[in-house]
Amino acid sequence: MYKLVLVRHGESTWNLENRFTGWTDVDLTPTGIEQAKTAGRLLKAEGYEFDVCHTSVLKRAIHTLWHCLDEMDRAWLPTVKSWRLNERHYGGLQGLNKAETAKKYGDDQVLVWRRSYDVPPPPLEAGDPRAEGADPRYARLQPGEVPLTECLKDTVARVLPYWNESMAPAIKAGKRLLVSAHGNSIRALVKYLDGISDADIVGLNIPNGIPLVYELDADLKPIRHYYLGDAEAAAKAAAAVAAQGKG
Amino acid sequence: MYKLVLVRHGESTWNLENRFTGWTDVDLTPTGIEQAKTAGRLLKAEGYEFDVCHTSVLKRAIHTLWHCLDEMDRAWLPTVKSWRLNERHYGGLQGLNKAETAKKYGDDQVLVWRRSYDVPPPPLEAGDPRAEGADPRYARLQPGEVPLTECLKDTVARVLPYWNESMAPAIKAGKRLLVSAHGNSIRALVKYLDGISDADIVGLNIPNGIPLVYELDADLKPIRHYYLGDAEAAAKAAAAVAAQGKG
Repeated sequence: MYKLVLVRHGESTWNLENRFTGWTDVDLTPTGIEQAKTAGRLLKAEGYEFDVCHTSVLKRAIHTLWHCLDEMDRAWLPTVKSWRLNERHYGGLQGLNKAETAKKYGDDQVLVWRRSYDVPPPPLEAGDPRAEGADPRYARLQPGEVPLTECLKDTVARVLPYWNESMAPAIKAGKRLLVSAHGNSIRALVKYLDGISDADIVGLNIPNGIPLVYELDADLKPIRHYYLGDAEAAAKAAAAVAAQGKG
Repeated sequence: MYKLVLVRHGESTWNLENRFTGWTDVDLTPTGIEQAKTAGRLLKAEGYEFDVCHTSVLKRAIHTLWHCLDEMDRAWLPTVKSWRLNERHYGGLQGLNKAETAKKYGDDQVLVWRRSYDVPPPPLEAGDPRAEGADPRYARLQPGEVPLTECLKDTVARVLPYWNESMAPAIKAGKRLLVSAHGNSIRALVKYLDGISDADIVGLNIPNGIPLVYELDADLKPIRHYYLGDAEAAAKAAAAVAAQGKG
């Protein structure tokens, strides 16, 4: 049996301001740092050991991993960072808060973007500096790989190659993986692993900073999964994410 | 022309206590954190960009890198951690301070270990938990790869394969490398690059937390090297290391 541990980053400054974040590279809040450390302490207390860590190229996930590793005294663990584990790209909504979005696009439209699996928000506009490829972390990607917006289906489509090519082979080779990522890149993995339908995945919420453990069989099919620590706290945190309504 | 940047970690708790540290995994002091951040701010101010980072598996070097990267807003840079960039292994001296070492081995003997290129301190004794391979970060190394003590010559011998196999090919492929390492693993690189004699290298001191830039030609031969920032501060810091007398 294999174990895979997924952690969604701790609270970020834009979670707190209730803005659509997406690929915007905002940092953790003090609460987010504390959540990350708590995740690390939980993993340590439960005796978890890892061989390789995976994270995105966004600092809220990277810093969450670093705080986790420091609490476990495992800063030395090899770590791979990939844009494929980034949060869903929120296109033109990035930077807007709930009120601004509703004002600009209308409540009904916003609900569609939030609740649908395959309707992406409007893309970043031509001329938007965020769309110009100025960011060196994406400079070596192929044309067309860097999204201008994503629906959850798009996120799934770019996360799965990373699972298939990097994570799954490592797990089968006996490596114990710790993954620090984002609400929607974790949803993408969970959807695939548990075979969750397109309709149901949009209602599944991943709480910040609580290790989610998957026990997998020899074919990497889930045997069971559970959150570490206080189950009630995990449920409450997931409900808070749902109430906030933004991945 | 290629550029390579080397940074010795910031002050550690055992630098402060004047203990032989070697492979002991002590952390940075608040001063060490500030030195690391200053290094990052200097690199950013001078417009340095990197493609890959290399560091040891010891947290004083890893954390120095993390603070540097955070100041440069480059936490996402790919980073490779290798035991081959660790500090010189100080064998049975690890954990002893200057007075304890002199009392146990005599002043003359301590001077030999400090000043010689090829006389290692006594190895960790059999039964020493630090010699038993309990540390998971070294568990996958080949028998004989994990030292029980090292003279500087031994450190050079295990750093150079890493230079030849990992760093040099990457530099020649156009990758800009940032290396966060230790007094003696940096000495090993500098000795090789500049062709410094066995006698002279022991008198060369690397200050904490000041970026050391090497400009290299197409064959990776140094054209020149210099410390970033205030030259006087760098000289003073190197002199402080020399006065302390421990790598």
